[in-house]
Amino acid sequence: MSFNCFGHVFRFVTWGESHGPAIGAVVDGCPPGLSLREDDIQPFLDRRRPGTSKFTTQRQEPDQVRILSGVFEGRTTGTPISLIIDNVDQRSKDYSDVAQSYRPGHADYAYDAKYGFRDYRGGGRSSARETASRVAAGAVARLVIPEVSILGWVSEIGGDAIDPAHFDAAEIGNNPFFCPDAEAAKRWEKLVDDARQAGSSLGAVVECAATGVPAGWGAPLYAKLDAELAAAMMSINAVKGVEIGDGFSAAALSGEQNADPMRPGEDGPEFLANHAGGIAGGISTGQPIRVRVAFKPTSSILTPVETITREGEASEIRTKGRHDPCVGIRGTPVVEAMMAMVLADQKLLHRAQTGH
Amino acid sequence: MSFNCFGHVFRFVTWGESHGPAIGAVVDGCPPGLSLREDDIQPFLDRRRPGTSKFTTQRQEPDQVRILSGVFEGRTTGTPISLIIDNVDQRSKDYSDVAQSYRPGHADYAYDAKYGFRDYRGGGRSSARETASRVAAGAVARLVIPEVSILGWVSEIGGDAIDPAHFDAAEIGNNPFFCPDAEAAKRWEKLVDDARQAGSSLGAVVECAATGVPAGWGAPLYAKLDAELAAAMMSINAVKGVEIGDGFSAAALSGEQNADPMRPGEDGPEFLANHAGGIAGGISTGQPIRVRVAFKPTSSILTPVETITREGEASEIRTKGRHDPCVGIRGTPVVEAMMAMVLADQKLLHRAQTGH
Amino acid sequence: MSFNCFGHVFRFVTWGESHGPAIGAVVDGCPPGLSLREDDIQPFLDRRRPGTSKFTTQRQEPDQVRILSGVFEGRTTGTPISLIIDNVDQRSKDYSDVAQSYRPGHADYAYDAKYGFRDYRGGGRSSARETASRVAAGAVARLVIPEVSILGWVSEIGGDAIDPAHFDAAEIGNNPFFCPDAEAAKRWEKLVDDARQAGSSLGAVVECAATGVPAGWGAPLYAKLDAELAAAMMSINAVKGVEIGDGFSAAALSGEQNADPMRPGEDGPEFLANHAGGIAGGISTGQPIRVRVAFKPTSSILTPVETITREGEASEIRTKGRHDPCVGIRGTPVVEAMMAMVLADQKLLHRAQTGH
Amino acid sequence: MSFNCFGHVFRFVTWGESHGPAIGAVVDGCPPGLSLREDDIQPFLDRRRPGTSKFTTQRQEPDQVRILSGVFEGRTTGTPISLIIDNVDQRSKDYSDVAQSYRPGHADYAYDAKYGFRDYRGGGRSSARETASRVAAGAVARLVIPEVSILGWVSEIGGDAIDPAHFDAAEIGNNPFFCPDAEAAKRWEKLVDDARQAGSSLGAVVECAATGVPAGWGAPLYAKLDAELAAAMMSINAVKGVEIGDGFSAAALSGEQNADPMRPGEDGPEFLANHAGGIAGGISTGQPIRVRVAFKPTSSILTPVETITREGEASEIRTKGRHDPCVGIRGTPVVEAMMAMVLADQKLLHRAQTGH
Repeated sequence: MSFNCFGHVFRFVTWGESHGPAIGAVVDGCPPGLSLREDDIQPFLDRRRPGTSKFTTQRQEPDQVRILSGVFEGRTTGTPISLIIDNVDQRSKDYSDVAQSYRPGHADYAYDAKYGFRDYRGGGRSSARETASRVAAGAVARLVIPEVSILGWVSEIGGDAIDPAHFDAAEIGNNPFFCPDAEAAKRWEKLVDDARQAGSSLGAVVECAATGVPAGWGAPLYAKLDAELAAAMMSINAVKGVEIGDGFSAAALSGEQNADPMRPGEDGPEFLANHAGGIAGGISTGQPIRVRVAFKPTSSILTPVETITREGEASEIRTKGRHDPCVGIRGTPVVEAMMAMVLADQKLLHRAQTGH
Repeated sequence: MSFNCFGHVFRFVTWGESHGPAIGAVVDGCPPGLSLREDDIQPFLDRRRPGTSKFTTQRQEPDQVRILSGVFEGRTTGTPISLIIDNVDQRSKDYSDVAQSYRPGHADYAYDAKYGFRDYRGGGRSSARETASRVAAGAVARLVIPEVSILGWVSEIGGDAIDPAHFDAAEIGNNPFFCPDAEAAKRWEKLVDDARQAGSSLGAVVECAATGVPAGWGAPLYAKLDAELAAAMMSINAVKGVEIGDGFSAAALSGEQNADPMRPGEDGPEFLANHAGGIAGGISTGQPIRVRVAFKPTSSILTPVETITREGEASEIRTKGRHDPCVGIRGTPVVEAMMAMVLADQKLLHRAQTGH
Repeated sequence: MSFNCFGHVFRFVTWGESHGPAIGAVVDGCPPGLSLREDDIQPFLDRRRPGTSKFTTQRQEPDQVRILSGVFEGRTTGTPISLIIDNVDQRSKDYSDVAQSYRPGHADYAYDAKYGFRDYRGGGRSSARETASRVAAGAVARLVIPEVSILGWVSEIGGDAIDPAHFDAAEIGNNPFFCPDAEAAKRWEKLVDDARQAGSSLGAVVECAATGVPAGWGAPLYAKLDAELAAAMMSINAVKGVEIGDGFSAAALSGEQNADPMRPGEDGPEFLANHAGGIAGGISTGQPIRVRVAFKPTSSILTPVETITREGEASEIRTKGRHDPCVGIRGTPVVEAMMAMVLADQKLLHRAQTGH
Repeated sequence: MSFNCFGHVFRFVTWGESHGPAIGAVVDGCPPGLSLREDDIQPFLDRRRPGTSKFTTQRQEPDQVRILSGVFEGRTTGTPISLIIDNVDQRSKDYSDVAQSYRPGHADYAYDAKYGFRDYRGGGRSSARETASRVAAGAVARLVIPEVSILGWVSEIGGDAIDPAHFDAAEIGNNPFFCPDAEAAKRWEKLVDDARQAGSSLGAVVECAATGVPAGWGAPLYAKLDAELAAAMMSINAVKGVEIGDGFSAAALSGEQNADPMRPGEDGPEFLANHAGGIAGGISTGQPIRVRVAFKPTSSILTPVETITREGEASEIRTKGRHDPCVGIRGTPVVEAMMAMVLADQKLLHRAQTGH
């Protein structure tokens, strides 16, 4: 992992800015012979695509992916897979506000401090638009791990959580929030719409489970499966926290409460609980991998916020323009994609070392 | 970052098992000319050292570090620094229990599933004993970032949190819990001692702040400062959650509540809040870097837990022997060490790209 | 360095096949603020471009590069620079010969053995067409090291070497062979044309010198400047040998003959010889970096060669189609590009570790 | 590959200076379950060990290796293998000459230029003593590739080459030169002894062949098998050139002469020649991998050489003390070790991507 590249043997690099001509990813190290067409990638992009409901940004991007290399006669060749997505709705507008004043909470000041200047159009490289590239690459990663099912959902928006007793995976696709609890989805409609109309924003918690991961993936001590997942998730825009299994709740438990007892099962060991989230010692145990990810509310709000200009003068800024009232929602397919990337990479790393 | 190696340009690899002859670290990429003697490292090891109070494992390890290379006439040469710590109290005992049955919650089953067998003596490679190597390497990392002050503390044990209003950094060294709240430290004495006597264990939350980090460290998008910290912390034994700044609390805030407004200050911008934990867009803002880390209760408890044997038969196991009733406590210097490692590495990466 | 990615902190990944829609490179880790336009890259591509004389392949490729990201208002932003070059002259022809039988000396059999199948159109990923991406990325690398001048030339074709006494750098651009010796260039016209007409091919030696490299770049022991250069050059298509300084000739010398004595000079030390090629202990000495690179004759010849089919049957193959009679010639700008990549990367690595 | 670490998934880092207390290597990513004892490593160290004949340095080092981690009950556990070799014959002598003046051709000046100072005792980190660590690590690598046989030999000393017609592998162990030609070995006795007595030194060419490598190892384009070998060999002290297969000779051939025609064989394809040295397109073909490596004469000679002091004053230096008259000789086991490292790493990388 270095700069704009993620992964060890199954790796991808992404490139592109919010308002450049295109964005893309190059996937390197993909196993050969996998069936891959643009149609295998597009559905995942469509789930993340903006402009599909009033609860997301109104930027209209078809997010059509093209495969430029690495596939021959419908199969991966083992060489780099170049994926490209054109930007088509870079609205030509007046960026002078953002160019001159830093939007607090955004990367504006930090980028300037690091690089001396920045592409300020729509956030440039720091825009969540980049995550479309991750979703495209993640779709390739899924092909590497057909034994695994990955499911993400939003479990909390603005502090309003789902009721775990109402969890219904089939419900996730039935609402614009990736919400598995029909009642919560109802509540969120008003919650998010109110925020949108007020020019405010809301945080969210996204959860993700991967089932079918065999015991043994992950590599102690610095490529631990949970460490890799933590890096992968924390690298997503607006993410401020990552938990594996019970996460911070485990810190309040006793050893007895936190135990995941084992019992002989029909197909290997059976676990009586999964506080560990499917990972022990950095290695998968065969239980579902469970991750929780905290998204902050976007800093793009209409309320004026005290700030400074590039020259260091006191100023104030309101963020007009198109943006998501709750970035966590569209973060769901991105969390899934990063889960797929990590698991594909760890599967290959495990195979490298052990031959299995 | 790959397998047992951490970092990009300032990197270290660790080696060694709980009951082998020694453990150690090799630090590569260290800048030349830094004054370094064993005395610069030993105090940090002494803070992590076991057996110093009844609240930690009773294993007696002096943890004396020796520098075998990379230093000449008291200064680093820029070549690899080999650090070695002898294991002296590997108690010869009967390991047949652990060898035959998996301790649920420990890495026993996962290691066997991955590697086909494991060094079961005291947890082998998965033992938290390895973290002594990190602390030693971290002491070197601190020399690379003299502009930065790193401070860690325990903010919660077994669900009992400190009162932030009582926070007193000077108190941290006055009790065996790295606790900055004298009253909480009192309560924890009983809490931890009860757990110890009951053969139980407790989780904890460790916090860490780094002040003095200039704006600009960190590299979008996959070597983001927060992503690197997340991986570093999650790679520590027993850690299940990582938060930057407000972390999961931010997910319940609105954009207005979560804003970190800026104002012109005497030395560059002043921030009116630090919900972001000193990082925006993966790059430091100049504010203190704030991290929270959740440690689960160790799975080594005296209460028998249902498990299976290596052959897959039903069994039960109680973990006798020496261990910490609350591993989070001694995790504090480890969290500090990993913070130092990440910041040293990112300082050099930033310098590589920008020349500053 | 891993798979299709080269470099440590200044790195690039290339993608694309000979007959896909496009090829490209993503440059990561580039310092911010460098002036970069397509016009800075195009001249280098034009030097490598095919079809400019009868001594190269007749494939007509304009090799127009486009910058898709990482540049804003004419300057690099520090984020990934995506470079793309469309393939426009993928002649639709009958590939059944190459698809069915392995061309000995080419990568056909090896790719099939590795991946199970391959994109056989024009060599697919193993085609030297990929080197256009390197030349584009190398043009960016040059901007990172303005203190360095890089000059490549062909010093030998088909065993016919230039006369070092006739070396004239100004001559290199005056002939289609990058030949610094006007007399040799004359001889080579006939030599190469004869080979071309006979459907044969010739090997070549390319040399490259980098002047202006300060003492101190390179990192012992496994990122040595010479080791990095060796990898960089050997990764170019058709290369079979690499020498630094006197190379194999040094193996026949005595220590006295091979000495590079030093003397105080006006600007630091003066060297009385440069057998070492500007590198000692893997670190630059301030003398010119000198590299020699051996290109084999391409295996694409009209003479039928004994081979086998994919099914393992005996067969015979003649390589018709468009190809260079001497691939070493157009290898010259590629050698220069790889030299630039290594030096840019090592400059940044050196700066990371030492601050200079 | 970065700084002092070599390899991708099977990797090692080395540490230690010529006159420090010890040197060592940490091998990471080794497959689990391999039988490994110190006795598996020692014979390779003994072949490289100094002081065994009058043709090598007279420094007396037993080079006893100890395994400190990563092995349990005689088998590798998959965790880092720490190997340590004590330095026992660091003669306490007066280093003021070397400390004050640069030995031309050695790394003295370059290290000072890079790091600002250096450990000058016996060359410090730049000493060929480090190669003992490589040989130890290489012995572990061999266990990863039991299907491969690696054989190295010296084919030329001081310009005097063996007669290929006299090549006899059985002869290699019968003389102190790793010479496969009994007659050449005779001649070299006088040649090397004369150089030794004159305080001079000689260059050499070492060759190495690996048989049993299946077709398919190696990864285009920047982890090509030949690129990796080139880096590995060029990273060895005193090496100035690397050839794969026919190397520079291929540059003088025509395509017809350089062809390696194929024919159906009993076990897959049969090749009628091996100009390519067993590698096409960066991937192994199943033929023997052939590498040639040029060692320069060591710069440690008794004849005074013009040089400068650290302060930049004109000076002169003669290198007294213990050193090899021909470093290429003891380079042979090092070349073998690096061959083993690269092949082990590439085997695992290939397995990662393809599952084979």
